[in-house]
Amino acid sequence: MTANARPKLDFPHRHLLGIEGLSPFEMAHLLDLADEAVDLNRQVRKERKTLAGRTQINLFFENSTRTQSSFEIAGKRLGADVMNMAVASSSIKKGETLLDTAATLNAMHPDLIVVRHHAAGAVHLLARKVDCAVINAGDGAHEHPTQALLDALTIRRNKGRIEGLIVAICGDVLHSRVARSNIILLQALGARVRVIGPSTLLPRGIDRFGVEVFRNMREGLKDADIVMMLRLQLERMNGSFVPSVKEYFHFFGLDAEKLSWAKPDALVMHPGPMNRGVEIDSEVADGAQSLIREQVEMGVAVRMAVLEALARNLPNGGGVS
Amino acid sequence: MTANARPKLDFPHRHLLGIEGLSPFEMAHLLDLADEAVDLNRQVRKERKTLAGRTQINLFFENSTRTQSSFEIAGKRLGADVMNMAVASSSIKKGETLLDTAATLNAMHPDLIVVRHHAAGAVHLLARKVDCAVINAGDGAHEHPTQALLDALTIRRNKGRIEGLIVAICGDVLHSRVARSNIILLQALGARVRVIGPSTLLPRGIDRFGVEVFRNMREGLKDADIVMMLRLQLERMNGSFVPSVKEYFHFFGLDAEKLSWAKPDALVMHPGPMNRGVEIDSEVADGAQSLIREQVEMGVAVRMAVLEALARNLPNGGGVS
Amino acid sequence: MTANARPKLDFPHRHLLGIEGLSPFEMAHLLDLADEAVDLNRQVRKERKTLAGRTQINLFFENSTRTQSSFEIAGKRLGADVMNMAVASSSIKKGETLLDTAATLNAMHPDLIVVRHHAAGAVHLLARKVDCAVINAGDGAHEHPTQALLDALTIRRNKGRIEGLIVAICGDVLHSRVARSNIILLQALGARVRVIGPSTLLPRGIDRFGVEVFRNMREGLKDADIVMMLRLQLERMNGSFVPSVKEYFHFFGLDAEKLSWAKPDALVMHPGPMNRGVEIDSEVADGAQSLIREQVEMGVAVRMAVLEALARNLPNGGGVS
Repeated sequence: MTANARPKLDFPHRHLLGIEGLSPFEMAHLLDLADEAVDLNRQVRKERKTLAGRTQINLFFENSTRTQSSFEIAGKRLGADVMNMAVASSSIKKGETLLDTAATLNAMHPDLIVVRHHAAGAVHLLARKVDCAVINAGDGAHEHPTQALLDALTIRRNKGRIEGLIVAICGDVLHSRVARSNIILLQALGARVRVIGPSTLLPRGIDRFGVEVFRNMREGLKDADIVMMLRLQLERMNGSFVPSVKEYFHFFGLDAEKLSWAKPDALVMHPGPMNRGVEIDSEVADGAQSLIREQVEMGVAVRMAVLEALARNLPNGGGVS
Repeated sequence: MTANARPKLDFPHRHLLGIEGLSPFEMAHLLDLADEAVDLNRQVRKERKTLAGRTQINLFFENSTRTQSSFEIAGKRLGADVMNMAVASSSIKKGETLLDTAATLNAMHPDLIVVRHHAAGAVHLLARKVDCAVINAGDGAHEHPTQALLDALTIRRNKGRIEGLIVAICGDVLHSRVARSNIILLQALGARVRVIGPSTLLPRGIDRFGVEVFRNMREGLKDADIVMMLRLQLERMNGSFVPSVKEYFHFFGLDAEKLSWAKPDALVMHPGPMNRGVEIDSEVADGAQSLIREQVEMGVAVRMAVLEALARNLPNGGGVS
Repeated sequence: MTANARPKLDFPHRHLLGIEGLSPFEMAHLLDLADEAVDLNRQVRKERKTLAGRTQINLFFENSTRTQSSFEIAGKRLGADVMNMAVASSSIKKGETLLDTAATLNAMHPDLIVVRHHAAGAVHLLARKVDCAVINAGDGAHEHPTQALLDALTIRRNKGRIEGLIVAICGDVLHSRVARSNIILLQALGARVRVIGPSTLLPRGIDRFGVEVFRNMREGLKDADIVMMLRLQLERMNGSFVPSVKEYFHFFGLDAEKLSWAKPDALVMHPGPMNRGVEIDSEVADGAQSLIREQVEMGVAVRMAVLEALARNLPNGGGVS
């Protein structure tokens, strides 16, 4: 089925900068489109080249194998010309500002820019300066919308729904853009979201997001349908707040015993890369209740959906032959 | 319009190693071809895949986001298979010589090699050892022909002509391959070229190039149609000659006041990346007289034109279906 | 000729992890297929896009310009979407294990993974965890099967046969996966293989491989048809065993005099990158008896053959239009 033959998606946004600001209808629509992409991604492809003639730039100010590869594969499978631009080898080192980089890229007429940046808000700044579609692939501790969408898709495919589920997000919530995007998305789609972690790793004012806050795994995991572990981001912590890894695992690392405190059919998630033995035990990570590998697969499907949805809103978005 | 249907371009060169050695007719011909590519680059593409089946290698011994991206996008838009080869991750570190690298690449049968190298002349050496077309993307302080072509194209599109214009090239001429290529190109196309800078940043014997030399911005900018600023290349200077950045800006940095010394309709250019507040003030860089963003856009068009012109001279250059 | 029209190759393996375990018939079959690819690689391409719709990941835990470029060009010429993944910019640095990397990549549904790893056996471990085809591009001092195949192809094209030839492999055999794969392959195809080197650079028990062992170039080169020099891998040696480079060249470096000890029509090979003046003299490396450049060319052809042979064994391997 070609782009021309498919009905236009009701996703009237130029960019995907965050989950915040999307309507539940739009969120569900992206999930539907991603669901469709799952099969496309599993089969031999080339049938649907809806991004043929499009230029996608992956602009990564922070390294990320998983996310960048996932966007690269997604774009190439849809026929886009994909260009990776790592900042380590860029003009940024010669003193060029983010805005000059944005203006430079824009002048080359890309169609889609995928951006990861260490500063919250940098992606919004960039989006205001370019004519093409911008996708936030993680900005500081702010948002990581495609990760939240892939998590939601994974949940929906395994549980059949999101509404009414109890989702416990556990660990280093403070440094996690994944947690923030998931809280917004999963709540908008009807889940009850809890966060669990030590006080030092929970952001102040987190309760204003409408989540239930727990500082104890046993209480927080009670009746949970989904146990979403977060990576302990030691590299973002400064000296005084770094927990002992051993102690951290004792209180907050997910092992078989702690998992037994959740519902018997609870499912385990992790955005990766995992610190095995720190926030999660290998027995659980590789166990029957784990969805961790499926999350990666859903990542490609979600990114295909997002790229396609935004490309349709570009000039001449109806498809190129 | 396909490559087969278009008349053959009268550009009888295997390589583009510099502006030096091209005839004014050939220069103008490349600009015409680039002019045509501007529209192609702005629209949705894939109509013209004149490099389909061609392998383009970007061999960069010095990092350059702008130039490498520009060549990568240009090649991909014309359908080439583009391979980036950064030297940081190459055999050069294992002690392989430039000539071995050339011979190795050549044995893989690429069609086009785009080279940037820190040593003047390295690109010529490489061109003698390979069977494919070589494009100089900057060799030491020697030449950077596609930068000069994009500058000329930008000028021609904005002023309607190059002949008779007064072009003032300002700043660190000593370390600038951009200046050298522009001096040759713009003079050949009939412009009057001036260079302005402190004595320590002007090459000895620069006057033999037929340019007028000024050490004072007020005098040099008088009646100028084009004010072309150069990046202060501090990284290429050794201790004793490094100017104070503050003092440099005072005497040679382009701000609104100094720009007022040129013609009222003078246009401002910079090859990027800019050191804002060093050789150029933000007010001018982002102002109404600035062509800096347009230069980047013209860069992609010029590189498409050059890649296409050289590919036609390859065996089987008439086009692949 | 399309993939569909060609008879299926009798190469019933999912992966190419080493030469060990292949039958002589299968080895010769891969060489035949590569022979065919030589012409394809020299002409303008796009006729045969047997990997269209396929995703090839180049996963390199060690840098290698030559091998990675060769696989990248081979894949792109057959129409694959090629994604390079260098480990320097990957999650491995965040503490992810090799098996997590394997599982992550697998979840993205690639069709072919080309792996280089510093540890012998890592490639086999990875192959057990993924659903796609894995090609060993060098694992520690273990195997480098495509290098051996390209060496064999080069020999066969120049000598008309492999059977009955005397092949002398000289130098740092201890650290060489190239030597190991070549010993297995060339002996299986009927060559008589000798190894020559100082005792400290010959693996213990090397004689059990059925090769003749020499510690002296004059004796070892006598009657040799092929003189295959190895790179002195100083970077893999620890302090006590590092030879003096000057002394090494005196005893084991191939110069015109030593070459004269072999047959008059002996041919010289080297897997590259060369240390000129260490294991080989420039006069010989660039001389009339050298096949070194042709080896690089054969490398692309062999990789095209291997990629194609393995892709046919994938689900839907019959070809995509």
